Amino acid sequence: MEKEEDVKVGANRFSERQPLGTAAQSDIRDYKEAPPAPLFEPGELKSWSFYRAGIAEFVATFLFLYITILTVMGVNRSTSKCSSVGIQGIAWSFGGMIFALVYCTAGISGGHINPAVTFGLFLARKLSLTRAIFYIVMQCLGAICGAGVVKGFEGNARYELFKGGANFVNPGYTKGDGLGAEIVGTFVLVYTVFSATDAKRNARDSHVPILAPLPIGFAVFLVHLATIPITGTGINPARSLGAAIIFNRDLAWDDHWIFWVGPFIGAALAAVYHQIVIRAIPFKTRA
Amino acid sequence: MEKEEDVKVGANRFSERQPLGTAAQSDIRDYKEAPPAPLFEPGELKSWSFYRAGIAEFVATFLFLYITILTVMGVNRSTSKCSSVGIQGIAWSFGGMIFALVYCTAGISGGHINPAVTFGLFLARKLSLTRAIFYIVMQCLGAICGAGVVKGFEGNARYELFKGGANFVNPGYTKGDGLGAEIVGTFVLVYTVFSATDAKRNARDSHVPILAPLPIGFAVFLVHLATIPITGTGINPARSLGAAIIFNRDLAWDDHWIFWVGPFIGAALAAVYHQIVIRAIPFKTRA
Amino acid sequence: MEKEEDVKVGANRFSERQPLGTAAQSDIRDYKEAPPAPLFEPGELKSWSFYRAGIAEFVATFLFLYITILTVMGVNRSTSKCSSVGIQGIAWSFGGMIFALVYCTAGISGGHINPAVTFGLFLARKLSLTRAIFYIVMQCLGAICGAGVVKGFEGNARYELFKGGANFVNPGYTKGDGLGAEIVGTFVLVYTVFSATDAKRNARDSHVPILAPLPIGFAVFLVHLATIPITGTGINPARSLGAAIIFNRDLAWDDHWIFWVGPFIGAALAAVYHQIVIRAIPFKTRA
Amino acid sequence: MEKEEDVKVGANRFSERQPLGTAAQSDIRDYKEAPPAPLFEPGELKSWSFYRAGIAEFVATFLFLYITILTVMGVNRSTSKCSSVGIQGIAWSFGGMIFALVYCTAGISGGHINPAVTFGLFLARKLSLTRAIFYIVMQCLGAICGAGVVKGFEGNARYELFKGGANFVNPGYTKGDGLGAEIVGTFVLVYTVFSATDAKRNARDSHVPILAPLPIGFAVFLVHLATIPITGTGINPARSLGAAIIFNRDLAWDDHWIFWVGPFIGAALAAVYHQIVIRAIPFKTRA
Repeated sequence: MEKEEDVKVGANRFSERQPLGTAAQSDIRDYKEAPPAPLFEPGELKSWSFYRAGIAEFVATFLFLYITILTVMGVNRSTSKCSSVGIQGIAWSFGGMIFALVYCTAGISGGHINPAVTFGLFLARKLSLTRAIFYIVMQCLGAICGAGVVKGFEGNARYELFKGGANFVNPGYTKGDGLGAEIVGTFVLVYTVFSATDAKRNARDSHVPILAPLPIGFAVFLVHLATIPITGTGINPARSLGAAIIFNRDLAWDDHWIFWVGPFIGAALAAVYHQIVIRAIPFKTRA
Repeated sequence: MEKEEDVKVGANRFSERQPLGTAAQSDIRDYKEAPPAPLFEPGELKSWSFYRAGIAEFVATFLFLYITILTVMGVNRSTSKCSSVGIQGIAWSFGGMIFALVYCTAGISGGHINPAVTFGLFLARKLSLTRAIFYIVMQCLGAICGAGVVKGFEGNARYELFKGGANFVNPGYTKGDGLGAEIVGTFVLVYTVFSATDAKRNARDSHVPILAPLPIGFAVFLVHLATIPITGTGINPARSLGAAIIFNRDLAWDDHWIFWVGPFIGAALAAVYHQIVIRAIPFKTRA
Repeated sequence: MEKEEDVKVGANRFSERQPLGTAAQSDIRDYKEAPPAPLFEPGELKSWSFYRAGIAEFVATFLFLYITILTVMGVNRSTSKCSSVGIQGIAWSFGGMIFALVYCTAGISGGHINPAVTFGLFLARKLSLTRAIFYIVMQCLGAICGAGVVKGFEGNARYELFKGGANFVNPGYTKGDGLGAEIVGTFVLVYTVFSATDAKRNARDSHVPILAPLPIGFAVFLVHLATIPITGTGINPARSLGAAIIFNRDLAWDDHWIFWVGPFIGAALAAVYHQIVIRAIPFKTRA
Repeated sequence: MEKEEDVKVGANRFSERQPLGTAAQSDIRDYKEAPPAPLFEPGELKSWSFYRAGIAEFVATFLFLYITILTVMGVNRSTSKCSSVGIQGIAWSFGGMIFALVYCTAGISGGHINPAVTFGLFLARKLSLTRAIFYIVMQCLGAICGAGVVKGFEGNARYELFKGGANFVNPGYTKGDGLGAEIVGTFVLVYTVFSATDAKRNARDSHVPILAPLPIGFAVFLVHLATIPITGTGINPARSLGAAIIFNRDLAWDDHWIFWVGPFIGAALAAVYHQIVIRAIPFKTRA
């Protein structure tokens, strides 16, 4: 029944006397875990802010696909790869758009822009099932429209020549490698989302500022730097679906399950790691 | 008549009971929308801060064009594109300058540095018509001077060889593609500006910090990554005008209307999206 | 016995009357140095948060090696180096991961992710010897696992062909150059860590915001830009050990001592510089 | 005699009634300009913090030259420029080091790391002449040592082959172009420094956060992107002097005056622009 320790960057030297395995049962906490969201919340469906949130997810995912796939096209169009923005430029495009869009939509919808993020937060009971499904549908529709507009600008021939920014496992890697890369990549992203939106972080006047969108965007950037050579990097089923539907070739559809199963497993692992290992929520609830 | 929900990054699970379509009518808001600016405000014209703001817009747009067009020249001068900063470097130059200059001039003039931003904020009645026109004139003058100084440093022959950093639709794209790219690109920028300067954002002690200049600069960077291969990326009529006047070739003038019409349409759409869909201002005003 | 001066960015013009060599003896300080951590703190071993911190260090170092070594592999795989993310992309990967992971784990373990950082903070008595050893062990295990997973994805042949991201002194440099580069590089990193986590910085409402993870990540990025051509850049013994064990060739083992001795000397110098020159801790303690 | 308007990002629509030319005479200000620093402040010379500030400037400028010149060497060493970090990487190195070092030393010495910044702040009477001269001497000594260590690592032949990272006007540009580029480049940097450290900015709870080191670092990055092809980019006389002394060839010495005269003129113009146009200090003092 003591105040929970206040750990800081570069320093962890407070005496800790909680008995092993019961972490953070303290009643005198300086923060409050919100109660789990209900599975179904009928009131939501009658509120404008519910639909507004869906529209914001649609627009954000539309802009995300539009800018990123257009950047991918630009790289492939160049006769010399050196004169284009390169793979690093593509990684900046994906990560930077997530930074800007999470910044813009966080106050409206929570700024998911990614079914895997929605799934992970749903598992942690941060939003209702109704809302999770609504968000995922709007994200997928936005992604399809975004990729479609890029195809309109680039023209059929060019778009298909460059594989439409679709995700698939590159030659030299097995489907298992691709699945593994998607799982760990999504884990990095969703783990950062959980860390950045933690109730405890909010409450502390600590060394670590509340700059949620920046590390989330950086996580996306870094995963792209690492796994573009393997799968083109999905870690966002809406992005993979939008690109696949507009591209619509077997190449993209054959591996498509990887870009749903991988991200959902990664998000689930991140939810488990954060809620059980780091936050020890089940133990607290029992206490 | 309840307190409006306080939505957070990665979480949107508050019960919402506003009836559909009437969003955010609550009287107990924790923030206040400023009243719309008048079209003409005679007092402004007698204040030093009005002219100081114009000078700040002039200097900022001058520095913006100077640094960015010089960077474009540097890329083109290299015998090998690999040894230059590349298209990614150009995109950093445009986005980074907007970040630094918005940071520096926000407290003086609002930090527009772009007629499309001024136009979007005018539509949202955030500044008077007098001020909007004065800003746009000063921005265009600054841009012309900035591009002129670059021409002075680089010399006529070299400057014209490399097309003076002017915007035009690249071969392989139609004028419609170019116009569309300018519209969506400016939408991304002005939508970010609206999100970053929202009265509601200000008032909340939320997950989303008030870091306006950084996402605005990033939005400019990302649009450049995506659309440099299409139009060289305008999304700023003053930048396009300055480069066109100093370059002064038909190539630049033929497509020049695209770089005024596109950004103004994009800014108008962003103003409509933010004020009507996201903030529901008209509905609130009626309530 | 006066209030210590409050120095600000770009300005240092307060009259200072402390007698030379006794810096900052003031009793009316607006901040409090925490007392030195004990060498052994038996209570720690019974607390769940101690083990949770170790798990967090393990997971963070695992993800650090996974993402960064995978990025290194991607660069080497390309037939043309131009189409890869390049050395700059590798530097972003190392620096960016440190930014994101320090952001995520700072509240759990202090966010070290590097035995040299742990060693430097231990010398400054910011954590107990028990905890320091436990962290270093967990960091090394995490690094080995992270490099191992990359080898699993890339396959033996490819992994060994590209030297597994291991650190060694490149041809054209002496072992002394490599050791020197590691010492100064780690000094830059650990000096930034000390600056960012300073008790005094915390207490002031100053120009310098408390954004600890960002400059720490940038320091790592910058050291990689500078010293990848010399040693591949270690400045993190766990990273060097993980890559060396999984690669397991004489090339990596012959120089391996450099990547422990160098970082530990650099961290010790940074601790001395910060604690004695900048903070004058010994003088204060005696006063 | 009214409260000065509180201008915000993207919005400048407050009625302003100050008569033209007398800007901001209000007595009811929410901030206080510090009084001008005396030219000589004898007390300083007896304080430890004065010498500690000098040491901090020495160490920071040492690390600045060490990391940046080493990065320049790495680019030149590569057989293929594509496999190196490129000009963009060099620009990141200079800008990023300024970001990290200003962050680290702002609380100790004000974080100048550049004689031009010291000169500009001296003109604005933000520090005493004694302190300005002491800082400039320490910066130059630090720069010489930093460049010297790089020469030690790289060896004589290689160091001289790649011109030691020294600044000179590149072929194809006149000395006038180089001087102009240095003046405008330093103006951008010092203008950002003034904006970031403004007393008014500090006092307002405005849209613009107090993130001084980040835009200052970005300004350095952007000027390097633009002017590396012209002069290699000085905008820091200590950096130019350190590289020239260690390189010690006529090539560097012939143009060396440009890298003192240019930055000092640029810094003076920025001080005039900020103090007179933006802040109207002389008018206020008279009021």
